[in-house]
Amino acid sequence: MLTSQSVAASADNGEPVGLNNTLHEPVSATGVAVPDHVYTVPARNGRAVRLTCGQVIRIINTHGTQVCDTWAFKADDLSEFMSMEHARAWIDRIIPRVGDPLVTNRRRPIMTLIADTSPGVHDTLMAACDAYRYTTLGVKDYHDNCADNMRMALKAIGLRAREVPQPFNVWMNIPVASDGSVQWLAPVSKAGDYIDLRAEMDCIVVMSACPQDIIPINDNHPVEVQFVVLSPSEA
Amino acid sequence: MLTSQSVAASADNGEPVGLNNTLHEPVSATGVAVPDHVYTVPARNGRAVRLTCGQVIRIINTHGTQVCDTWAFKADDLSEFMSMEHARAWIDRIIPRVGDPLVTNRRRPIMTLIADTSPGVHDTLMAACDAYRYTTLGVKDYHDNCADNMRMALKAIGLRAREVPQPFNVWMNIPVASDGSVQWLAPVSKAGDYIDLRAEMDCIVVMSACPQDIIPINDNHPVEVQFVVLSPSEA
Repeated sequence: MLTSQSVAASADNGEPVGLNNTLHEPVSATGVAVPDHVYTVPARNGRAVRLTCGQVIRIINTHGTQVCDTWAFKADDLSEFMSMEHARAWIDRIIPRVGDPLVTNRRRPIMTLIADTSPGVHDTLMAACDAYRYTTLGVKDYHDNCADNMRMALKAIGLRAREVPQPFNVWMNIPVASDGSVQWLAPVSKAGDYIDLRAEMDCIVVMSACPQDIIPINDNHPVEVQFVVLSPSEA
Repeated sequence: MLTSQSVAASADNGEPVGLNNTLHEPVSATGVAVPDHVYTVPARNGRAVRLTCGQVIRIINTHGTQVCDTWAFKADDLSEFMSMEHARAWIDRIIPRVGDPLVTNRRRPIMTLIADTSPGVHDTLMAACDAYRYTTLGVKDYHDNCADNMRMALKAIGLRAREVPQPFNVWMNIPVASDGSVQWLAPVSKAGDYIDLRAEMDCIVVMSACPQDIIPINDNHPVEVQFVVLSPSEA
């Protein structure tokens, strides 16, 4: 049995680990998706998809209750990536709105949020869940987690990132009170809500259907999300 | 003349660059400080200091108007570092308070905030200023920045980190409104205010007296800060 301790030790080397099928089910060997095809990110799994500049990815909250941790990496240099700490400074907000560019750690737009049918409640503040998170929550054995999903999804298309950046936690409901305290609540989106993100450079988008089932951010029941790379005519 | 373009290109390689004296003025060759000695981080410069587990560093806002970007790295493995995105999740707050542990990207405490004489207005949301930041603000030539200061301060004691983590921006006043928008304001601390951070593991603390002089976070006039590694009897 792979324990959380051994998994954590492996993750320290930056190598993908995990016990779900993310590593074996890429959208294609290169990460290129068929336009207009609806792909599923199964519950607790991750997927990576390659976008060319100008392409739009639609991420769909199939059941309305699921958080999707989302990353974007520059296609030819994964050390440049969508960075929430730079994005917040760029847009002067802690949650992106429609029209907002999302910049990289080199402060240039990598994607723009161009549509959002949900109430716009997302999170940029909380680290991806990882093996350490579940260990501190009392889990003894391996627990699927977004950090491993990101590593596995990239590895599944032959790529590797040197770190797990702060994700754009789409639909994650983390209200910040006036005293700076936060809560971890279920999403306020409804079934079928989607966001559209337009690539501003060639990039790799990684999504993880967050497997958190101990605190209520996924309404205590992690499920799948879906995504589509839109044909130019639809975007 | 070193331009911001050439500097940015160098920074992409992770190598320290910069035109101030940070690289040449370490507290000592190894980063070990003399206990109780008051060191100065000159305006627009950075310093790295080595702490053993249990030691306390006092960072002093000499003039009350200065932001100090602060990082902590595990002494024997700089890939583990104080991580604001993990710390926020740990303390359920966006600004640490006295008594709060600050955890690493592996979710274990590296420092604890044990004293704060200021009103407690700090920031964990905004990336360190960097060459890209000043380019986007219209600066043509090299501008001192906290990211380069961090790299130079580490290099000055023979170390290198593979990334510039989100810093703990001590005294930086970034109020978050109920609609998620943020402002960039001058510090509310007073001259002589200090914070005490206790090391929970052997670590390297890096401080940068933020050189931002275009927006008012340093009251439009970057100045020095000071620090002291306290003797055990005082901590």
